[in-house]
Amino acid sequence: MDVLKDDTYFMRKALEQAELAFEADEVPVGAIIVQNDEIIARAYNQVELLKDATAHAEIIALTTAFAAMGAKYLPDATLYVTLEPCLMCAGALYWSKIGRIVYGASDEKNGYSRYGLEQYPFHPKTILTKGVLADEAAFLMKSFFKSKR
Amino acid sequence: MDVLKDDTYFMRKALEQAELAFEADEVPVGAIIVQNDEIIARAYNQVELLKDATAHAEIIALTTAFAAMGAKYLPDATLYVTLEPCLMCAGALYWSKIGRIVYGASDEKNGYSRYGLEQYPFHPKTILTKGVLADEAAFLMKSFFKSKR
Repeated sequence: MDVLKDDTYFMRKALEQAELAFEADEVPVGAIIVQNDEIIARAYNQVELLKDATAHAEIIALTTAFAAMGAKYLPDATLYVTLEPCLMCAGALYWSKIGRIVYGASDEKNGYSRYGLEQYPFHPKTILTKGVLADEAAFLMKSFFKSKR
Repeated sequence: MDVLKDDTYFMRKALEQAELAFEADEVPVGAIIVQNDEIIARAYNQVELLKDATAHAEIIALTTAFAAMGAKYLPDATLYVTLEPCLMCAGALYWSKIGRIVYGASDEKNGYSRYGLEQYPFHPKTILTKGVLADEAAFLMKSFFKSKR
């Protein structure tokens, strides 16, 4: 019997990436990129490992997906990310022309929406879905920062 | 006699990068990162070469500088870029905590300021200077897009 590959299914895969980040002592954010029900990129935040403040899960996933597809745009792909993208990642997703973005928890501190943008930051054709498995993603974040105190 | 290493001097180095982009048939934007009057990173837009819509000059320069310094923040560095950063690059510069940003020409189409941000997108400690050798940078851009028509 085939597993139903819906948004919850794919967000669980992104959460698995976030858990890998947690285990590696990185801020636990995970992302995957899916096209035709196949995962073409998996990534988690690697700011500490790479000593690169821009090495967010979404950026690494995008670069991996561009390489996997040999294409500089991803109009038929969907990004699943456990946390609301920051301004940088929102901008990167704009350039990618990605077909759809699904994110989990909101990020009141660093999410793009805190900047009060007058304009939709993504490509006009990009569809946005919020709040999928948000509690799980937020719980991971809270546990991480609690462990740091 | 030492050459005076002022903003114009360093912006000329960024313009040289933009010219390399032009010759490589890439949108002609160049960037360099300077610390203690030394250039620690040079980059130009490589979207076509890398088939990566996020391979902007600033992003490549930042990644190079993080590697050069073995540090994930660049509070004592200055980025010189020939064109106003886009939203993605503004966000990346925020995360880098770079000390200063100097840009050349404004970018009415894709510059971060077109988004009507309510909040300064860079790190609060980052100093911003605009318009250095703006005409030269704008001329390169106009020549490039004219050649594409």
